[in-house]
Amino acid sequence: MTGSPFDAALADHAGNVERMLDRLLPRAEGPEIRITEAMRYAALGGGKRFRPFLVTQSARLFGVNSESALRAAAAVECVHIYSLVHDDLPCMDDDDLRHGRPTVHKTFDEATAMLAGDALLTLAFEIVADPATHERARVRVELVRRLAAAAGAHGMVGGQMIDLASQGKPLDIGGITRLQLLKTGALIAFSCEAGAVLGRASVEAEHALHAYAHDMGLAYQIADDLLDAEGDPVLMGKKTGKDEAAGKATFVSILGPDRARAQARMLAEQAVQHLDLFDERADLLRQAAHFVITRRN
Amino acid sequence: MTGSPFDAALADHAGNVERMLDRLLPRAEGPEIRITEAMRYAALGGGKRFRPFLVTQSARLFGVNSESALRAAAAVECVHIYSLVHDDLPCMDDDDLRHGRPTVHKTFDEATAMLAGDALLTLAFEIVADPATHERARVRVELVRRLAAAAGAHGMVGGQMIDLASQGKPLDIGGITRLQLLKTGALIAFSCEAGAVLGRASVEAEHALHAYAHDMGLAYQIADDLLDAEGDPVLMGKKTGKDEAAGKATFVSILGPDRARAQARMLAEQAVQHLDLFDERADLLRQAAHFVITRRN
Repeated sequence: MTGSPFDAALADHAGNVERMLDRLLPRAEGPEIRITEAMRYAALGGGKRFRPFLVTQSARLFGVNSESALRAAAAVECVHIYSLVHDDLPCMDDDDLRHGRPTVHKTFDEATAMLAGDALLTLAFEIVADPATHERARVRVELVRRLAAAAGAHGMVGGQMIDLASQGKPLDIGGITRLQLLKTGALIAFSCEAGAVLGRASVEAEHALHAYAHDMGLAYQIADDLLDAEGDPVLMGKKTGKDEAAGKATFVSILGPDRARAQARMLAEQAVQHLDLFDERADLLRQAAHFVITRRN
Repeated sequence: MTGSPFDAALADHAGNVERMLDRLLPRAEGPEIRITEAMRYAALGGGKRFRPFLVTQSARLFGVNSESALRAAAAVECVHIYSLVHDDLPCMDDDDLRHGRPTVHKTFDEATAMLAGDALLTLAFEIVADPATHERARVRVELVRRLAAAAGAHGMVGGQMIDLASQGKPLDIGGITRLQLLKTGALIAFSCEAGAVLGRASVEAEHALHAYAHDMGLAYQIADDLLDAEGDPVLMGKKTGKDEAAGKATFVSILGPDRARAQARMLAEQAVQHLDLFDERADLLRQAAHFVITRRN
């Protein structure tokens, strides 16, 4: 926390997302209590809630009511969290720590972590499909369709697959860009478009948000690679230096840290330019582009 | 295959489901090819396609067109297959064989199997949400909502959790009934209701199908327990005797095989009675109730 107004807005928003998730996650009760406990452990009490922030800020541009926006935001976060829970498992990245706490499979066990991830992914679609998310069925089902496309085999999961398959077989810059557009870019793009769908925005506005999300997503990932290479594991609440240890090519290993930093800055500036057709309601999205390349965790 | 007309209808239908899945599964291409190959390996070339059969047969009662019904059927099968792929993993049941073939993690690896399961679950929602599944958004989003509820923490995944948690701590008959209503019953119930939703059936017709599905689901599970206790592993294409080895209570271990068999028969008869308000278009559903308690794999 640097105490900037943007940080304060992000933290304030994270509290809203936390409360919405608490409302939407199943209660910990019944004989299946272990699964609901694991879901709550995974989803509550940590994280910047950056993707949800993109959802609510893009929704704000079109005057979407906050209940709708926060529900869609919570759904995106459920998808993000499920991917982290599965990614942390021994058969994937084998991580013990996430947001400074033991990972789900460490606190529970591997089977419970896998099932909790499965249930969080499923819950995301249940949340979006619920009439409380938007009065129009057409809007809800369009969100479902896009969320599924962003999360699936030609989206986030496809990116995770490329990432795994590339260990020991380093990718070139085109390969890494493709990997990241799928692995992190697709869900970030969905987050920005969700507001446009909820607000039934013009095609022009939607394209602008998509272009913003594209550049933001890559900038975000380069910053992530820089943090993994140079960041403080205590501040980050997780292990660093993992890419190098795994023999993975990253933007940093290919471009070098200085060019990677310059590239991230260029992408962030470009992202902001895509927002030119919006008024001051887009200011936090503009600041978000700066935030992603200067964050320290 | 005993060669009865019902078996022939089921086999014929399985071919239709196979072709629809082949159409809907992502092509095996791009750098993420390993994930799409694993999804195709898991989903194609095996299985009775019993849940899809319930979808298309219930849809038939209301004159739903076969493209709509088969798409919904394929989506249900994707959810079923994802659950098998995850269930077979070492951290769950640790099975090497499924439908007489090596399981996904044996043919690929654990990480790929987990991701392929994730992608199949995601694909199910993408299929249902696609306008090709039904012209009305309200119908599609209602299917999404119900499918998510049936598959999630208070549905199938909750049942898997109870199942895991009960190893070494055998459940009583009430506990087992609850477990099975979630683990297998919820998706079977959805399969029967999907036709009603697609066909915008009356509440009365939907309730009848729900009651049918409830009894069918339990009968199906008792038959499954009997097959695990007494079945031929060669015919079944997978290991048997697993419940006893895992120290799990089942309908068979609690009731004994004779009373379990009688109970399954009673449930199947009761299931058929719930179909009294339908005409001869429900005949295959009637025969399905007989099929579930006499099948040998």
